Amino acid sequence: MTDDPTRRWATRIRAGERGALARAITLIESLRPEDRAHAEALLDALAPHDAASWRIGVTGPPGVGKSTFIDSLGAALIAAGHRVAVLAVDPSSARSGGSVLGDKTRMQRLAGESAAYVRPTPTGGVLGGVARRSRDTILLCEAAGYDVVLVETVGVGQSEIAVGDIVDVVVVLAMADSGDELQGIKRGLLEVGDVVVVNKADGDRIAASEATRAMLEGALAMARATGDGGWQPRVLTCSSLEDASIVRVVAALLEHRDAVTASGAWAERRIRQRLAALDDAVRTALADLMVCDPEVVQARSDVLPDVSAGRVTAGRGAQAVLAALRGRAPLARPISE
Amino acid sequence: MTDDPTRRWATRIRAGERGALARAITLIESLRPEDRAHAEALLDALAPHDAASWRIGVTGPPGVGKSTFIDSLGAALIAAGHRVAVLAVDPSSARSGGSVLGDKTRMQRLAGESAAYVRPTPTGGVLGGVARRSRDTILLCEAAGYDVVLVETVGVGQSEIAVGDIVDVVVVLAMADSGDELQGIKRGLLEVGDVVVVNKADGDRIAASEATRAMLEGALAMARATGDGGWQPRVLTCSSLEDASIVRVVAALLEHRDAVTASGAWAERRIRQRLAALDDAVRTALADLMVCDPEVVQARSDVLPDVSAGRVTAGRGAQAVLAALRGRAPLARPISE
Repeated sequence: MTDDPTRRWATRIRAGERGALARAITLIESLRPEDRAHAEALLDALAPHDAASWRIGVTGPPGVGKSTFIDSLGAALIAAGHRVAVLAVDPSSARSGGSVLGDKTRMQRLAGESAAYVRPTPTGGVLGGVARRSRDTILLCEAAGYDVVLVETVGVGQSEIAVGDIVDVVVVLAMADSGDELQGIKRGLLEVGDVVVVNKADGDRIAASEATRAMLEGALAMARATGDGGWQPRVLTCSSLEDASIVRVVAALLEHRDAVTASGAWAERRIRQRLAALDDAVRTALADLMVCDPEVVQARSDVLPDVSAGRVTAGRGAQAVLAALRGRAPLARPISE
Repeated sequence: MTDDPTRRWATRIRAGERGALARAITLIESLRPEDRAHAEALLDALAPHDAASWRIGVTGPPGVGKSTFIDSLGAALIAAGHRVAVLAVDPSSARSGGSVLGDKTRMQRLAGESAAYVRPTPTGGVLGGVARRSRDTILLCEAAGYDVVLVETVGVGQSEIAVGDIVDVVVVLAMADSGDELQGIKRGLLEVGDVVVVNKADGDRIAASEATRAMLEGALAMARATGDGGWQPRVLTCSSLEDASIVRVVAALLEHRDAVTASGAWAERRIRQRLAALDDAVRTALADLMVCDPEVVQARSDVLPDVSAGRVTAGRGAQAVLAALRGRAPLARPISE
């Protein structure tokens, strides 16, 4: 049941109250089972979750200038009439010390914008859980009237793959080093980019950045013949300090949006993501049941001694646990005779 | 129920009939649900699965000489009165073309031994599934009277971790290259070794092998202060062509067995493995249910349109699937009002 306080809360989120949105995101991020149920009810109250939003992932290695880039990109999108939310997917924060969005003051331009909402880093957690929570957080931001959601992630492992599963378009930031080589970028990171940006292309790095851009364009043309609906990744240089650079990035993003909307790839990607999210949610809920449901926990404890002594195989023990999960008597006879 | 043919089959396996064992392993490796049920019944009929066996994992990079080493080690163990089964865990066979045990004739000495059973490579599959099937295959071999099971795996990724989860002791094969460096060995591979063998220490490689051995011994003494029950990995040089080498390897393995038996670490490791196998089996069975159970499949199809259109959140859709899995009515009201 969705109770009245939940409906009132939903109404306040829809009205754009920042406090209500912030509290809702905190609820979404909670791992407590009772909070999960409450969060689902709140999301229900905010349904239907329509697709009239633009979810933009921004990834790249540490130090490539993601925060400044997002700050400038967000400001440009607001100037074009959008309302912009900024979130972070950061499965590595526990390990790295958490630089992603750790300091809201790094986004000076967005900090002063009434049409921007910048959410600080969530507090770690497993990748799957982070992805699920990020999906739900995006829905909340959209319900609150933010029609662009920028999702920042550090491209250090699998997180850049995860971000591609929850956004409409991925921007990969790269950087030329003192030569024209890429600096600190992981294999596989470039391949997820719909738009690849050679960032910090200013001062004495301009020539190297342009050489890197040309090299990347050639490499990506060979590596990925067809992206979503035949989209060929665009490769640009950019200085987040120059408005003209950001205008070119926005143009590339619009070009991507138009192309994949026309081809149907946009809608297909959203549907694919929702189905993946469903299966993710089932897996997560099952994993929760294994440790939270009293009958399942009891069934596992009951078979443990026989399994650990080798009297019952793991497969047979699993059947007993599953029977409890399904609320049924085990189909097979007990093993010890 | 365990029917009479299954009991008769079990009796023939216990009597050491190779054809019956081979057919049983093929059954274990089958992915068909009805074969899984039959396999469980057969394993039940062979219970209790006692611990009077010695499970030895052998891993190392491609080209390090695993087959010849296993051939010589197996022959030495047979000479000491054991009966030896050789299995392979090869999650990479689909990709690499499958060199592990692909050619039984590479084990010339074991091929002629009546006390040896060499099982060819299983035909690929996911890592989790391979580990489960390998666990059950080990039980079958033990029921058939093989008191030593040698499990071969290529140390190319996570498989060396997986092999440590199903054996009592892990032998890692390394090799000196033309200098005294290690050749083609992955980070993390050495750490799983209870006994590390610098193989092919013959001809003009003897000096380099000894230098590599000393280097590894020093590195491992620092890296792993205490293994199972305080065991310090032994590092040996070996030429599989020389009986004296293999005798030293067997001595190191016996030393490990005595030490971990005395400390209780042996029994603890087996128990830990069985509990991990239980949880693996539950996960696998749940994944099977998601695609095989008619009610669950139906529930998922029922929510798919609403989830893919964004009308129902993934979390709420998952609750409907779980309700079907548990044979219960969904606890929550439908979302569309």
